[in-house]
Amino acid sequence: MTIYNAPVEDMMFLFDNLKDNKNYKEIDKFKEISSDLVKDVLDQAAKINQEIVHPLAKIGDDSPCVYENGIVRSPPGYKEAYKKFITDGWTSLSCDPKYGGQGMPKTVSTFFEEMLSSASLSFKLYSELSIGAYNCILHHADDKIKDKFLPKIVEGKWSGTMCLTESQCGTDLGLIKTKAIKNSDGSFSLTGQKIFITSGDHDLTENIIHLVLAKIPGAPAGTKGISLFLVPKFNVDESGAVGSRNGVSTLSIESKMGIKGSPTCVLNFDNAKGFLIGKENKGLSSMFTMMNLERIIVGIQGLGIAETAYQNSLAYTRERKQGKSNDNKNGETDLIIKHADIRRSLMNMKSIIEGQRSLAFWLSQQVDVSLNHSNENVRKEADEMVSLMTPVVKSFFSDMGMEITNEAIQIFGGYGYTRDQGIEQLYRDNRITPIYEGTNSVQAIDLVFRKVLTNRTLEKFVSLLQNEIKNYNDKVELKRLSNILKEKIKLLLDFSRWLDDKLKNQKDDISAACNDFLKVLGYVALGYSWLKMTKVSFDNSSKNKNFYEEKINTAKYFFDKILPRIDSHYHSAIAGSESLMKAKFN
Amino acid sequence: MTIYNAPVEDMMFLFDNLKDNKNYKEIDKFKEISSDLVKDVLDQAAKINQEIVHPLAKIGDDSPCVYENGIVRSPPGYKEAYKKFITDGWTSLSCDPKYGGQGMPKTVSTFFEEMLSSASLSFKLYSELSIGAYNCILHHADDKIKDKFLPKIVEGKWSGTMCLTESQCGTDLGLIKTKAIKNSDGSFSLTGQKIFITSGDHDLTENIIHLVLAKIPGAPAGTKGISLFLVPKFNVDESGAVGSRNGVSTLSIESKMGIKGSPTCVLNFDNAKGFLIGKENKGLSSMFTMMNLERIIVGIQGLGIAETAYQNSLAYTRERKQGKSNDNKNGETDLIIKHADIRRSLMNMKSIIEGQRSLAFWLSQQVDVSLNHSNENVRKEADEMVSLMTPVVKSFFSDMGMEITNEAIQIFGGYGYTRDQGIEQLYRDNRITPIYEGTNSVQAIDLVFRKVLTNRTLEKFVSLLQNEIKNYNDKVELKRLSNILKEKIKLLLDFSRWLDDKLKNQKDDISAACNDFLKVLGYVALGYSWLKMTKVSFDNSSKNKNFYEEKINTAKYFFDKILPRIDSHYHSAIAGSESLMKAKFN
Repeated sequence: MTIYNAPVEDMMFLFDNLKDNKNYKEIDKFKEISSDLVKDVLDQAAKINQEIVHPLAKIGDDSPCVYENGIVRSPPGYKEAYKKFITDGWTSLSCDPKYGGQGMPKTVSTFFEEMLSSASLSFKLYSELSIGAYNCILHHADDKIKDKFLPKIVEGKWSGTMCLTESQCGTDLGLIKTKAIKNSDGSFSLTGQKIFITSGDHDLTENIIHLVLAKIPGAPAGTKGISLFLVPKFNVDESGAVGSRNGVSTLSIESKMGIKGSPTCVLNFDNAKGFLIGKENKGLSSMFTMMNLERIIVGIQGLGIAETAYQNSLAYTRERKQGKSNDNKNGETDLIIKHADIRRSLMNMKSIIEGQRSLAFWLSQQVDVSLNHSNENVRKEADEMVSLMTPVVKSFFSDMGMEITNEAIQIFGGYGYTRDQGIEQLYRDNRITPIYEGTNSVQAIDLVFRKVLTNRTLEKFVSLLQNEIKNYNDKVELKRLSNILKEKIKLLLDFSRWLDDKLKNQKDDISAACNDFLKVLGYVALGYSWLKMTKVSFDNSSKNKNFYEEKINTAKYFFDKILPRIDSHYHSAIAGSESLMKAKFN
Repeated sequence: MTIYNAPVEDMMFLFDNLKDNKNYKEIDKFKEISSDLVKDVLDQAAKINQEIVHPLAKIGDDSPCVYENGIVRSPPGYKEAYKKFITDGWTSLSCDPKYGGQGMPKTVSTFFEEMLSSASLSFKLYSELSIGAYNCILHHADDKIKDKFLPKIVEGKWSGTMCLTESQCGTDLGLIKTKAIKNSDGSFSLTGQKIFITSGDHDLTENIIHLVLAKIPGAPAGTKGISLFLVPKFNVDESGAVGSRNGVSTLSIESKMGIKGSPTCVLNFDNAKGFLIGKENKGLSSMFTMMNLERIIVGIQGLGIAETAYQNSLAYTRERKQGKSNDNKNGETDLIIKHADIRRSLMNMKSIIEGQRSLAFWLSQQVDVSLNHSNENVRKEADEMVSLMTPVVKSFFSDMGMEITNEAIQIFGGYGYTRDQGIEQLYRDNRITPIYEGTNSVQAIDLVFRKVLTNRTLEKFVSLLQNEIKNYNDKVELKRLSNILKEKIKLLLDFSRWLDDKLKNQKDDISAACNDFLKVLGYVALGYSWLKMTKVSFDNSSKNKNFYEEKINTAKYFFDKILPRIDSHYHSAIAGSESLMKAKFN
């Protein structure tokens, strides 16, 4: 089995030193969230994730969910663990105290999301969409629905799903066929089939609250005629008690490459009773409230799984002996961590992971500000940053998760390819993250066409970076690294101007460049995160010398060995799209 | 299930137009291998691989090999298919007619290896090591052993294995513990345990011939004291008949990420009777005869699986509708092949695959010359090229196989992640190729330290390239592409000079750069292959217009969109190793 130790020290380093957004510090209700309190929460979180959740990862892979006679059974031990999980209040961490939540900021809950992803993605998915459903209901439903459903969801006794995909459409939701017909009591009857529904059915909760996209007859064609409905698995009476079964049934579950402990369901809606959430035909934008926060969390999943891959790789290199390193003196076989090439793999992992954790922490502050700051303009500005970086974090982190889990298999060699060590499972589990919640290509298109070209939010992000680093001159090394970043920022801006130029007549050039642009922005954002950590590390290096020197060293690695990747993406992209559009593929 | 259509047209294009090695043309015995004959062989090969072998891929994944009561059973249908396979003579394709082989050159058998890899890697592995064993016995055993074992191996009635790895050593064979004690009759008794033995036991053949590395007591320590033995599963009497069971038993088979239809065995040798092959203590170099050709084939496996991934992706993009392309005019949903980003993915695949096939064809000519040319110097020169490019083909092709199968999953989206389509299986099956027959890192170290720094074979390869392309001036586009390649060759030479500089005092810099160097050389070699294909395509474009124009277009894509990757590898590598060697990983 794999090992996992929650990186609480690194998380506390960020919480203590990198709450660098002044607007975040102005949020009244988070002023009481002290370092000690957070440390306590993270220690508790570490404990349950290491001891209770992590063993479920392998169990779920070895004994996947079972579908029998219309019923879905979760893997052995999941039920008991889930009970402990909700009893300890982990589903309620970031929810509103009004509905029973603990009101923690995203800065803290994101650390928890990472730990849970590291421990077992399959187990995580049972509660993850509940938080999505919570957010969607909180922001778009009326008070009656909120009061009836939110406390149970926050408590974890009921879970949630997002029902978007149908067999003919995943990316292109305008093609949805599920119908919703209005009943005389104001409710709707939904009929249709949804596929790829994560946690669509299972035996961990008393009820499952489906958030379903459907079309009301007569609605406009395409995405402008989609409405959002709340459809419970079991009807809920006025008192909030669970009653008769609603018209939702499970037709099958998928046999998948990974996350086998999580049921991915085909759901059939047959005159299922549902309630409109938000306005008619505005369902897609309501669903995006849920989707956008979910997308960040998918990125965090990639980060979390990468962390587990790194920890196991590191441990293996410290016990496996093979070959002789260049400075071998005694003629005996060395631990493989002595080999430069193995160290390069470990540093790839470490420098990307720690950079991502820092970027995620920065983004969490932006999310907190966008949701909670008293000034509307400040909220709006933060929301723009969230909107810009959401597709980046979703795609870049999930892609890097693939690279890192792949690299872990390679470090383990033959032992990485056999199933008993659990290493190859990390790749398989993570392989869904570049696909679900909008494929990474869709994210890249969203980033470039909606955020960079239309909303011009990139310039704001770049100003933020430039303002931050312009004074990083007090140490030679810090200055060297910030000069490297300045070069890469220049290239990012050149790239965005190239995109501008192509907007009028060469849209295919842009479409073919979106993925590369997302990667370039991702690496620049990581560089920015590393630079801030380096600054703090220099400033504090007298205190916890080992920790801060390692940070500075890892930053150097990132700038010298990882950032050159930017150039290839840029040069490949600006070569345009002529040859690929001309191809006949004969 | 996946589809597969053997790319016979592309293979014949290479055979007809790119037998560009004059030494190859001088090999007497291959002069009669006409284009018509090869076309006929490839058509037959396509038929068996498409119809008989390809369906076994999914079967093997769904119903893996079973180990029960010491016996290994292959998946359903494998036995019948194997019988047909050997009856039709496919195991004997490139073997010496003296032992019943068909005497085909590697130029042809490599095409067959690719097809078989595309069709089912698991099924392929049952016969693949037989050819390895054949080569090893042919080159190192005495006539008595050759006469006794080779005809049965060539016929496919007996199969072969390579028994190197033990639990404490894969990469570092100096640590081998298996012992061989000499018997009075000149044979040896072998005792020890070998792991990760591909096709170590199964029910497809009457006998299994293990080639085993072991140490004779008193032998020098490390790799200089390893001998090679032939150890049959069943003893073979003087008449060549299969007799009593030898002291080799199967302890277990691995549960693996992929190639589940191929048994990976733990073998126990308990006073098993074996015969020395070659000289005492020289076993490793004999084994390398087998290993080196095997390594090329592992690269071909990556190419073959990538081809299947590409074909399925292409077919899917021509049937799946989603979203609207930039030039959408009718407002209806487009096939995804209309989207620029999808076309980019397809062109990545196509340009890398066709370039690799061409490079493999060139390398096959070198292998044929190195084994068959009448002039010893010519043989030696060709062997140097083989030796240089073997680690490149092994690592680069297997790594590109990962990239391409990963990209195929992404094109299929959610349907790529579920098991029924067979797409994610391509990734899992291919994931072993960067590991076995020497991990890709070991290949990179071999390339740089043994071939580039010690034997200076890189210069010879580069001269070959420069001589070839210096006259590519007759078309504007050809000249443009050759200028790009010239730049990249310059960078390759700069890189190799940088390696030279570091040899004395900074070996860790070299070790940390080996992987990047291998990639740079791989991309340059692919550029060279593409350039030759482009030249031929321009020269012939009046004949088969569609085919040749597509080749030229794909070449442009490769040069403009793929080759920029070289720069990042170079710049990352020459940043050195200081930070990674200093890291404490605390």
